[in-house]
Amino acid sequence: MAQLRIALAQTNPTVGDLTANAGKLVDWTRRASERGAHLVVFTEMFLTGYPVEDLVLRNSFVEASIASLDAVARRLADEGLGELPVVVGYVGRANLAPRVGQPKGAPLDAAAVLHRGSVVTRTAKHHLPNYGVFDEYRYFVRGDRLPIFRLRGVDVAVAVCEDLWQEGGPVAVVSQAGAGLLVVPNASPYEREKDDVRLELVARRAREAGCALAYANQIGGQDELIFDGDSIVVGADGTLIARAAQFTEELLVTDLELPEADPEARPGSYPYDAGDGSTITVERLDLGLEPVPPYEPEPPSIAARLDDLEEVYSALVLGVRDYAAKNGFQSVILGLSGGIDSALTATIASDAIGPERVNVVLMPSRYSSEHSLSDARELVERQGIRSRVVPIEGIVDAFEKEIDLSGLAAENLQARVRGMLLMGLSNEHGHLVLTTGNKSELATGYSTLYGDSAGGFAPIKDVPKTMVWQLARWRNEQRGSGEFIRDFGRPPIPVNSIEKEPSAELRPGQLDTDSLPPYEVLDRLLDDYVEKDMGREELIAAGHDPALVARIIRLVDLAEYKRRQYPPGPKITPKNFGRDRRLPITNRWRETGA
Amino acid sequence: MAQLRIALAQTNPTVGDLTANAGKLVDWTRRASERGAHLVVFTEMFLTGYPVEDLVLRNSFVEASIASLDAVARRLADEGLGELPVVVGYVGRANLAPRVGQPKGAPLDAAAVLHRGSVVTRTAKHHLPNYGVFDEYRYFVRGDRLPIFRLRGVDVAVAVCEDLWQEGGPVAVVSQAGAGLLVVPNASPYEREKDDVRLELVARRAREAGCALAYANQIGGQDELIFDGDSIVVGADGTLIARAAQFTEELLVTDLELPEADPEARPGSYPYDAGDGSTITVERLDLGLEPVPPYEPEPPSIAARLDDLEEVYSALVLGVRDYAAKNGFQSVILGLSGGIDSALTATIASDAIGPERVNVVLMPSRYSSEHSLSDARELVERQGIRSRVVPIEGIVDAFEKEIDLSGLAAENLQARVRGMLLMGLSNEHGHLVLTTGNKSELATGYSTLYGDSAGGFAPIKDVPKTMVWQLARWRNEQRGSGEFIRDFGRPPIPVNSIEKEPSAELRPGQLDTDSLPPYEVLDRLLDDYVEKDMGREELIAAGHDPALVARIIRLVDLAEYKRRQYPPGPKITPKNFGRDRRLPITNRWRETGA
Repeated sequence: MAQLRIALAQTNPTVGDLTANAGKLVDWTRRASERGAHLVVFTEMFLTGYPVEDLVLRNSFVEASIASLDAVARRLADEGLGELPVVVGYVGRANLAPRVGQPKGAPLDAAAVLHRGSVVTRTAKHHLPNYGVFDEYRYFVRGDRLPIFRLRGVDVAVAVCEDLWQEGGPVAVVSQAGAGLLVVPNASPYEREKDDVRLELVARRAREAGCALAYANQIGGQDELIFDGDSIVVGADGTLIARAAQFTEELLVTDLELPEADPEARPGSYPYDAGDGSTITVERLDLGLEPVPPYEPEPPSIAARLDDLEEVYSALVLGVRDYAAKNGFQSVILGLSGGIDSALTATIASDAIGPERVNVVLMPSRYSSEHSLSDARELVERQGIRSRVVPIEGIVDAFEKEIDLSGLAAENLQARVRGMLLMGLSNEHGHLVLTTGNKSELATGYSTLYGDSAGGFAPIKDVPKTMVWQLARWRNEQRGSGEFIRDFGRPPIPVNSIEKEPSAELRPGQLDTDSLPPYEVLDRLLDDYVEKDMGREELIAAGHDPALVARIIRLVDLAEYKRRQYPPGPKITPKNFGRDRRLPITNRWRETGA
Repeated sequence: MAQLRIALAQTNPTVGDLTANAGKLVDWTRRASERGAHLVVFTEMFLTGYPVEDLVLRNSFVEASIASLDAVARRLADEGLGELPVVVGYVGRANLAPRVGQPKGAPLDAAAVLHRGSVVTRTAKHHLPNYGVFDEYRYFVRGDRLPIFRLRGVDVAVAVCEDLWQEGGPVAVVSQAGAGLLVVPNASPYEREKDDVRLELVARRAREAGCALAYANQIGGQDELIFDGDSIVVGADGTLIARAAQFTEELLVTDLELPEADPEARPGSYPYDAGDGSTITVERLDLGLEPVPPYEPEPPSIAARLDDLEEVYSALVLGVRDYAAKNGFQSVILGLSGGIDSALTATIASDAIGPERVNVVLMPSRYSSEHSLSDARELVERQGIRSRVVPIEGIVDAFEKEIDLSGLAAENLQARVRGMLLMGLSNEHGHLVLTTGNKSELATGYSTLYGDSAGGFAPIKDVPKTMVWQLARWRNEQRGSGEFIRDFGRPPIPVNSIEKEPSAELRPGQLDTDSLPPYEVLDRLLDDYVEKDMGREELIAAGHDPALVARIIRLVDLAEYKRRQYPPGPKITPKNFGRDRRLPITNRWRETGA
C-alpha cells in the first residue's frame, strides 16, 4: 500500500471572474501545500465558474479560459508550488469540425492536471446532463478521454461530475483499467432531500470502480442555483472516510492508504469499451514523483450534517449573500408588511449581509390593520435594520382620479404602487430589491405582476408557506452567532407575525383562507403536483380531495401561464425571431475586458 | 413510373388543444380527399402542437396524445376517409426503462401513418436539435425506426424535421434502402434570412436520398416562435416542383411521377448502419392499395416568395394575431407616444386583429412636446382605433411628494406610471398589453423595467430601429388589403412620426442621439455583436470604431444582466431550489380536463 494526502478545495468561484478564480486557486494550493498535501482537487469549471450558460458559445470566452489555465499553471510554478499536482476544472475545446447540431466551437466541460508549470493532461465530462436545471447538450460536446496519472506510486483517475450519476462511461472504464483513486470535480447544486442520495451514489461508484473516490463540490450562490459543498471521500468498499461541511468553504485534507500501481501498466493511450455504446481512451502518464516515505496519518474529518431546517435556512442566507455580492450590491431593500413572509425575508437578509445594510419600507394603505405597522416596527427594532414609512394612499388616489379600477385590478394597483416605490428607491440608492413571496402563494397566483413580484431576488420563492412558519420558529430559537446566524440578543421575529392569521390586506377584512384551503392541505397538494408532476388522476388516487385538485391545479396552471405571458420585458435574441440569449446573471467576465 | 397525388397540409395547430387539432386533421383530410389526393402529410407534432416544452414530461399529457392519435384514426374511417393514408406528427413514447439523464417517460417526437381506422406504422425524430430555440435533449429520446410503406406501387419513407438538417441518420438510410418518395413533417420556425437555405437543404437531401422529397411545415405564431410554412416538394434531382406560400395556411396538392417500388423488397424489419454511429431499423409494409390508373396531372403550384420587408411585416402581424387568439385575448392595449415605435406597433396590431379591437392610451407628461399628442391623435384618426388621454403629471407628483427621485430614477418613474396605467386598464378590461420597444433600444438598455417593458407581448422586440423606419415607410406605401394588410383608405402612419428625431421625452429636450450613435452605425454593430456573437477583437477587426465597440458592448451586457437580475416575478420550480418549469405560454391542454 502507498500513502497519499489529498486536499479537496471546496470553494466558491464566481462565474466569469477568471482572474479572481485563478487567484483563489493559487491561494488554496498554497494552503494545501502548507498542510503537506500530495494532490489538490478543485471543483468542476472552477476557473470559469459554473454555470456559464451561453457565454460558452462565445469564442473569446473559451479562449480566455484556456489561456487562463496555462497562465495559472506557470504561476503556480513561479510561486514555488509547481511540485504539487493540481486537478482543476475549466472550459476547454474539442478539435472537431463544425457541424449542424454541435455547440459552436465544440466547448468541453474540461478538467486538467497541472504540474511543474504545465498542463500535463486533460479530460472532459463524458455524460452531459440535460434535465432539471442542466442544459449541457446546448453547451458542450462529450469528452472521450480518461487520464490516469501515476502519483507517488498510485494511479489516479479523473472524471467530471455527471460521469458519476449515469451508467457506463468513465467509472466503467476505471473498473477495467484499474486505478488506486478516482477524483471527481463537481458543481452539483443543492436540492432539499431527506435522504443522503449523494453519499449513497459516491459509495456505489467507488465499489464499481474498485478504488477510493474523492468527490469535490463547490459551494455558493450563483444566479438561480445554490451549491452546498458536502465534499466526500470514500474507500474502495464505499466506506465514508471524510466529509466536508455544507454551504461553507473548506479545505478537506485526508490521508489515504491506497494500492500501489501495477508496474506493468505503462504510459500510453488505450481504448476501452465504455459500456454505453462509446469508446473511451485511457491516457496513462507518470508524473515522475517518488512514493511518499511512511508518515503518521492525521485523523480524518467528518463534518456533522445539518438538520432539515438549518440546512434550508443556511441555503437561503448563502443565496442572498452571494447574489448581492456577486452582482455588486452593497445593500438590499424590501417592503415590510408585518406579516410572516416579509419578516422572514428581512431576517434572512440581516443574517446574510448585516442589518445595517438592510432597508425596509413600511407602506400602509387604507386597508392596513394596526398590528401591521406595529409588528413591522417591532422587527425593525429587534434587528436594528433601517426603516422608513411611506403611506400609499395619496398615490393610489392620484391613479384612481385618472382611471376607474375595481376588484382585482384595484387590489393589483396597491401592490404595484408599493413595487414602484421600492424600484424607485432602488434606482436612486442602488439597493437590490428583495421580493417576499413564498412558494405556496406564487404557485397559486396570489401575487401581483409588477407589484409584490417586482424585484431582483426572491429569497423564499422556493419555500412553501408551512415551511415559512417552521423556519421563523426555528430561527427564533437559535442563540449565539455563526456563519448563517447573527446574534441579535433576542428572537429576531415578532411572535405576533408568526401567530396571526395571514392576510394580503388589499381589501377590508381579507384573509388568505377566504380563497385558499388551510396551508397544510395546500402545501401537500402543491408538492405532489409541482414537485412530483403528478397528473389529476394520480393526485386523486393519492388521496387529495377531487374538487380541491381541480381548483388548485387550475390556479397553478393559470399562474404559470400568466408568468409566461408577462415576461419582465423582452430580451434580445441571438437570431432574429429566436429565443433570448441565456447568459448568466452574475457573470463577471466582460467582453470589454474591464 | 407510377403516378401519385400528394397533399401537404400546411396548417396552424395550437399547442395543447388536442381536440381542435384532431378536428382540423379530419377537415383537411376531407379537403385533400375531395382534391383526389392519394396521401396527406401533416406537420411535426401536429396533434399536440409544437413546441410543447415541459408538458411532454407529464405522463398524462403523453397518454392523451397517444389516445388522440388512435381516436382520430378511427374517426377518419368513421367519416369515410379511412382509405386515404395520412402521415401526422404527435408525441409518442419509447419502451425504455427509466435511467438518469433520460427524459421522464421517454417521450418521442413521433409521426404515424393512419389507414383504414388504424395506426399502421410509426417513426420518431432521430436527430434531436438542442441549439438556438430548441432544447430537445431535454424532452425526447431519439427514434431508431424508419418506415417505408408501399402506397399504390410507390415506396414512401417518413422522416421528421431535424433529420433533414443533420448528417447521417434517416436520409442516409433511405439512400441505402431505396424509396420513391421521402415525406418529412416539420415545425421549422421563421428566421430572417437573405438566402434560400431551406430550399437548398431540401434539394441536397433529395439528391442524397435518391428520391423525391416532400417537406410539410406548419405556420402560425406559437409562444415565442413564428412558423412560416413555405412547404416544398422537389424531385429526386433536387429540382423545385411545388412550393406553398409563406405565413398562410395552404393545402399544397402536387402530382408526382415516381419510380415503381422494387418488387423484391418485401415487408419486414431490416437494420441499416445510419452512418452516424447508430443503427436504424427500416420497417417495410404494404398498404395493399393498387397503383393509380393513368390520369392527367394538374400543373404544380409554386408560390411567389415575399420580399424582405413584406416577409418581416407578415411575420409580425401573424405573431400578434396568433398570440392574442391562442391566449384568448379579444383586444389589445398600448401606449401611443407619437413616436415611430408605438406608431408601427399600433399599425401591426390594427392589421392583425382590426382597429376596433386596438386600444391606445396617450399619456403626456410635463416633458411631452406638442407634436407627441398631435401625431398620436392623427394615427388614431387614420386607423380608427380606440383612444383615451390620461395625463401622468398628477400621479408623478403624488409619488414625488412621498419619495425624492432624481436623474434616471425620476425618468424611470414616468415610464413606470405609464406601465401601471396600462396594466390597470388591462386587468380591468381584459386587454393584452403590447410593449413598443425595438431591438436597438432593448439591446442597449434604453428601456425601463416594469415601465415601457411591462406587457404581455412585444411585437417589434426583434426589429432593429433602422428596420422600424423601413417597415413604416413600406407599410405606408401599401394599397388595398390582404391577409396581413388592411385598407385604411390612406397611409396609416403619420409622416411626422416617421421623420421626426427620436426622443424618449423623459427630460427636457432629450434626444436619442444625446447618448447613442446614429442608428445606422449602432444597428450594424449590434448585428455583429448580438446576432453573430463576435467578440471585441473580431468587432474591431470587422471595422467598427474601437471606442464605440467598448461602449456598446458594455451597454448590451449590462442590459442583459439587468434583465436577468430582475425577473418578472419568481417562477415555481419542479424541484426545490431548481429552475422553473418550462411550460408553453399559449398551451391549451388542461390537466383539469376542462
